Amino acid sequence: MAGTDKQREMLAEGPAIILVEPQLGENIGMVARAMANFGLAELRLVNPRDGWPNEKARAAASRADHVVDAVKVYGDPAEAVADLNFVQATTARARDNFKPVRGPVEAAAGLRARHKGGQKTGILFGRERWGLTNEEVALADEIVTFPVNPAFASLNIAQAVLLMSYEWMKTAPEAAVLPEPPRQTPATKEHLSSLMDYLDRVLSERGYFRTEDKKPKMMDNLRTLFTRPGFTVEELAVLRGVLTSLEKFTPRKPKGLGKPGAGD
Amino acid sequence: MAGTDKQREMLAEGPAIILVEPQLGENIGMVARAMANFGLAELRLVNPRDGWPNEKARAAASRADHVVDAVKVYGDPAEAVADLNFVQATTARARDNFKPVRGPVEAAAGLRARHKGGQKTGILFGRERWGLTNEEVALADEIVTFPVNPAFASLNIAQAVLLMSYEWMKTAPEAAVLPEPPRQTPATKEHLSSLMDYLDRVLSERGYFRTEDKKPKMMDNLRTLFTRPGFTVEELAVLRGVLTSLEKFTPRKPKGLGKPGAGD
Repeated sequence: MAGTDKQREMLAEGPAIILVEPQLGENIGMVARAMANFGLAELRLVNPRDGWPNEKARAAASRADHVVDAVKVYGDPAEAVADLNFVQATTARARDNFKPVRGPVEAAAGLRARHKGGQKTGILFGRERWGLTNEEVALADEIVTFPVNPAFASLNIAQAVLLMSYEWMKTAPEAAVLPEPPRQTPATKEHLSSLMDYLDRVLSERGYFRTEDKKPKMMDNLRTLFTRPGFTVEELAVLRGVLTSLEKFTPRKPKGLGKPGAGD
Repeated sequence: MAGTDKQREMLAEGPAIILVEPQLGENIGMVARAMANFGLAELRLVNPRDGWPNEKARAAASRADHVVDAVKVYGDPAEAVADLNFVQATTARARDNFKPVRGPVEAAAGLRARHKGGQKTGILFGRERWGLTNEEVALADEIVTFPVNPAFASLNIAQAVLLMSYEWMKTAPEAAVLPEPPRQTPATKEHLSSLMDYLDRVLSERGYFRTEDKKPKMMDNLRTLFTRPGFTVEELAVLRGVLTSLEKFTPRKPKGLGKPGAGD
C-alpha cells in the first residue's frame, strides 16, 4: 500500500474493478497495470484460480504495486459487491433481461455521476473463457458492452478493463452532474441481497417457483426487477414492509391481533 | 473465419498500424488481436527484433490470423509510411516541436475524416522501452498522446494500439449501434393504478395502514416507490405475481394444492 497522501487520495478515486474467477496471474497483473494507467486502484478478485498473492500477477503489473498490494479477495460475487451502491457488468453479448445496456462512454459517465454523488461503484468482469453467468449479471444495475468488431469480438480481460478505466479517466475533466442529488441513502448490494434471500424463502415456501429447474431463471428475473430502480435504503424498507405484511398477516388475522407474525 | 466479402471489406478499412522496432513477439500478437477487435487489419512492422514471421506473435494474436498473415515488414520508418497521405505518431511525453498534439478522440476523428476523403492513413507506435526517436516523430503530421495517470504513465504498446483502434471504431457510424435491449412495453398509468388498487385492498385487509389517517400518506409513499422505476408491463406482471403468491398462498398451503386461492 502506497505511502504519500497524494497516492492515498488517488486510491480512493473511482469504481472498484471486480474480476470473477480470473485464471491467469498475468491477466490480473495486466489489469492492475491498466487500472494504474488511468488512475484506478481498487481491485477485487473473486476466487482467483491460482490463489492470492500471485507472483505472476505482480510481474505482469509492471510496478503497479499499489494496486496489487491493495487487492481484496472474496469467496463469491455477491460478497464482492455487497458494500457497493451501483454495479455494472461487462458482457460480450446481449442478454435477455431487463437491464439497461450501455456503451463504455455512457457507462463511464454514469459511474462518474454516481461517484460525485458519493456512491460506491464497481464494474464486474467475467472469466477469460466465458465471462459472467446470468446469476452474476443479475447482481448488476447495468450492462456494459464494447463496440467491437462483430467478426472478432473476444476482448481480453485486461483490454476490457483498460477501456473502462480509460473512459473513466476521460470523464474526469467534465463536470458530470447527478440529475437529482438523492436525499435518501442509496442501498448497497447487501441490502438488496437480504431482500432477495427473504423473497427466495417466502416464495419457495409458497410454491411460487413451481419447479426447481425454473427457479434460477425466475430468481434472476426478480433480482433484475428489484435492482434496476436503484432503490434507496428507505425504499427497500417500505417494500419489505409490504411484503412482510402480505407474508405474515391475513384478512382474518390482520396486524394488531398479534397471532400470525412473531413480531412486526 | 476469414473469407466472406463482408470481412474483406472490413479489412480494407482504416489506418495502418505501424510498429517501429517492436521487440517481443507477444506484443506484436496482442497488437494484432486489438486491431482485429476493432476492425483494423493492416499491420506494418519496421525491423522487428526477432524477425518475421514470429510464432510467438501468432500465438498471442488469438486467431487474429488475418492480421498476422497480412503483416508487411519494412527496413525503415520512412519506407513504412511512404505510401500514406497522413500519419500520426503516438508519444508518451510532450515533444518540443511544432506539430499539433491530439488526444485519442480528436485523433480518431481526424483519421476518419481523411479516410472518408479517400486518404491513406497510418499511426506510428514506438519501441517498448523508449518509443519513437525525434526523427521518426518528424515523419508524422500530428502527435497523439493519451490522457494517462501522470503518476503511472507507461502504456504497453498493445494497450496504446487498442485505445487508438477503439477510438477509430467509435467514429464509425455503425459503432453507435449497441445490441438492442429486449423490447418491453412501458407500463401505462392505468397498469400502475391497478397495482395500487390491489395493494390498497390486500394491505388494508391485513392492517398494514394501522390507522385511517396515516393511510393517504402511506399510499403516496407506495405509489412513489412503484412509479419511480418506470416499470414495464412485463415487470409489473412479475411483481404482481410475487405479491399474489404472498397474498394467496402459505407455507402450509402452497401453490399447487389448490386450496387457498380461487384461481392463480
